[in-house]
Amino acid sequence: MINTALFVKMVIDRWNGSIANLDKHLGSLTDEQLQKQVAPGKNRGFYLLGHFIAVHDEMLVLLGMGAKLYPELYGPFLKEPDNIAVQTPPVAALRKMWETQNKLIHEKFRQMNPEDWFQKHTAIADADFAAEPHRNKLNVVITRTSHLQYHTGQIVLLH
Amino acid sequence: MINTALFVKMVIDRWNGSIANLDKHLGSLTDEQLQKQVAPGKNRGFYLLGHFIAVHDEMLVLLGMGAKLYPELYGPFLKEPDNIAVQTPPVAALRKMWETQNKLIHEKFRQMNPEDWFQKHTAIADADFAAEPHRNKLNVVITRTSHLQYHTGQIVLLH
Repeated sequence: MINTALFVKMVIDRWNGSIANLDKHLGSLTDEQLQKQVAPGKNRGFYLLGHFIAVHDEMLVLLGMGAKLYPELYGPFLKEPDNIAVQTPPVAALRKMWETQNKLIHEKFRQMNPEDWFQKHTAIADADFAAEPHRNKLNVVITRTSHLQYHTGQIVLLH
Repeated sequence: MINTALFVKMVIDRWNGSIANLDKHLGSLTDEQLQKQVAPGKNRGFYLLGHFIAVHDEMLVLLGMGAKLYPELYGPFLKEPDNIAVQTPPVAALRKMWETQNKLIHEKFRQMNPEDWFQKHTAIADADFAAEPHRNKLNVVITRTSHLQYHTGQIVLLH
């Protein structure tokens, strides 16, 4: 048996590293750059920023870490695709939300004991979890880290 | 203490899911599409395909799973950036290498016992590993899955 804290560190380090990398890129892209499409006909940069916040808000709920901070982002940045006809929201407001949310996530993750991460997330039934114990909270972070990396690869194209 | 096999399954499932997703996209992109840049002035699709193969060859070595299959890809797809002035190699050849390499990786991963994944990788000294046990083989797969997702987010822009 391997030490549980070691597993958890490996996964959370990768989440933190992915957030720090994206944050570095966001810090060096101007609001004007974020209003551009990452490639012709594809999502605009600020749409991806709003999308990250909306998805991470859903993650907080899945992890049982409280309510969404910005439920108003669900419609325009998760349910609906980017629409060039829709006016750009203030990018500065999204940047502030992103910062606030990351601080909250960091604090919530810090409060978890290693074993807590292997509890079921909030969208799986007890019976299903008994048969599929890999569908735990830590696995939610693993899949959301993949999602983060996928769209980070797109937003960097704005440089 | 959490079951080691469970943790390994979570990480390897994410690797396998990421490979399967990229494979699906590669299968639906033509050779002509892969010769295009993912965004103006950025890497061409086939460069990313060669880059994946070169990076995963390096991973095989790091994991102590044998020598590289295609060492000739290191120069043009990892050491050197994409260069539009360089002629497109036969995309069909890269596709074949990708398929062969994935089969080998799948088989090598299948042969590992869960505990084996927590051994040190081949690029870290014993003394360093004693102090930093998270720098193990499974962590190499975690970071390479991030890399895979990052560039998958770019290659899908060719659709």
